[in-house]
Amino acid sequence: MPTKKPVAIVFDTFGSVVDWRSSLIADLSAYGAQRGVTADWPALVDAWRAAYHPSMDRVRKGEQPWTKLDALHRASLDQLVADFGIKGLNKADLVHINLGWHRLNGWKDSVPGLTRLKTQYVIGPLSNGNVSLLTYMAKHAGLPWDMIFGSDLFMHFKPDPETYLGVAKLMDLEPGQVMMAAAHNGDLGAARKAGLMTAFWPRPLEYGPHQKRDYAADRDWDIVATDIEDLATQLGV
Amino acid sequence: MPTKKPVAIVFDTFGSVVDWRSSLIADLSAYGAQRGVTADWPALVDAWRAAYHPSMDRVRKGEQPWTKLDALHRASLDQLVADFGIKGLNKADLVHINLGWHRLNGWKDSVPGLTRLKTQYVIGPLSNGNVSLLTYMAKHAGLPWDMIFGSDLFMHFKPDPETYLGVAKLMDLEPGQVMMAAAHNGDLGAARKAGLMTAFWPRPLEYGPHQKRDYAADRDWDIVATDIEDLATQLGV
Repeated sequence: MPTKKPVAIVFDTFGSVVDWRSSLIADLSAYGAQRGVTADWPALVDAWRAAYHPSMDRVRKGEQPWTKLDALHRASLDQLVADFGIKGLNKADLVHINLGWHRLNGWKDSVPGLTRLKTQYVIGPLSNGNVSLLTYMAKHAGLPWDMIFGSDLFMHFKPDPETYLGVAKLMDLEPGQVMMAAAHNGDLGAARKAGLMTAFWPRPLEYGPHQKRDYAADRDWDIVATDIEDLATQLGV
Repeated sequence: MPTKKPVAIVFDTFGSVVDWRSSLIADLSAYGAQRGVTADWPALVDAWRAAYHPSMDRVRKGEQPWTKLDALHRASLDQLVADFGIKGLNKADLVHINLGWHRLNGWKDSVPGLTRLKTQYVIGPLSNGNVSLLTYMAKHAGLPWDMIFGSDLFMHFKPDPETYLGVAKLMDLEPGQVMMAAAHNGDLGAARKAGLMTAFWPRPLEYGPHQKRDYAADRDWDIVATDIEDLATQLGV
């Protein structure tokens, strides 16, 4: 257990708390079958996620004005549906598929771990998702957040420091009283640079067979856990 | 039951969901006794609340830059402690007393009613309180919000339209898909003007013996309920 404890813990969400890949593949495969639309849904999901960082980087670098993640996801989806030659999807289908990011499921330790942590800490997602996406996701997956720190509150995507420091400002805390918790070393590096405490656990199956990194902590994060339940244990809950 | 239903319901908080007057009087009386500080705590609480609207109006009219409610409360408290001639409070005492607004309790129907509504609607406070105040209040009182719409997200206090419309924008909803729910007719009037649905229930004991208004709905709000449990019932939950 670290000698100092945070007041608030904010969580990276996609991959760290929810299993976006398995959730989306199951969701879209079932929807495709129901609608009679054939596609390589796993490949589409992987390509969709691969478009995630480049799409946000265009906003972060000022090449595109502030755009919510839902809209970035939709633009990527439209492009990929064309690239993959998927036929038979109407406008309502595309809306439904895009909102698949609102219907992700937690890893099995997520809800029990967060429920324990909530008893002693302020908990929330600090995600590149927008508030509405994260709110509906929480209702779908049963994530018991105290507050939702969507990127649209800051009009910045991680790893911009405005996101990490924005949480501290909204909660009237010093950056060092906030802990960033994630399965991604890069996110934690940016959070530490902004003065936050850090906690890591691995999600070796996040990218399925395509995982390339984040199998282990690559720095001396304040806490290195096996999952969110273990994080709660290490934080004395 | 109204023919149309909202997607999200946002609640006025002070008075409508939490009983600020009884909570603060009990909290401060106990703290004063513990610290050996004598004061007319009920009178202080009433005077403190009386300073609430004038203090926000200074910000709303541009006479003072954006200031979180916690800071407005503190400025009013400092003035009142001097006016009332209360002696023996140190800096830590004043911080503790000011955070009394984070330790308010719900009316008896609030947690059960909100818990029911949460199963079918997005629920959150839309309050002049700041995010940190409302987050700690929710943890203290057990209010099961999905998202916290603090005034600092919009840098506007109600009844400025930016607050009501700000919720719709964050949730990607039309104003008419959002319902403002409050025990205050004035709040609902401003919400309706911004295009929101409206729900009212009375809190005739909010101001204790000093209540002057809001004993009943003064317009044809979309729902008029007896309390938040009845609101849930009328919304089919």
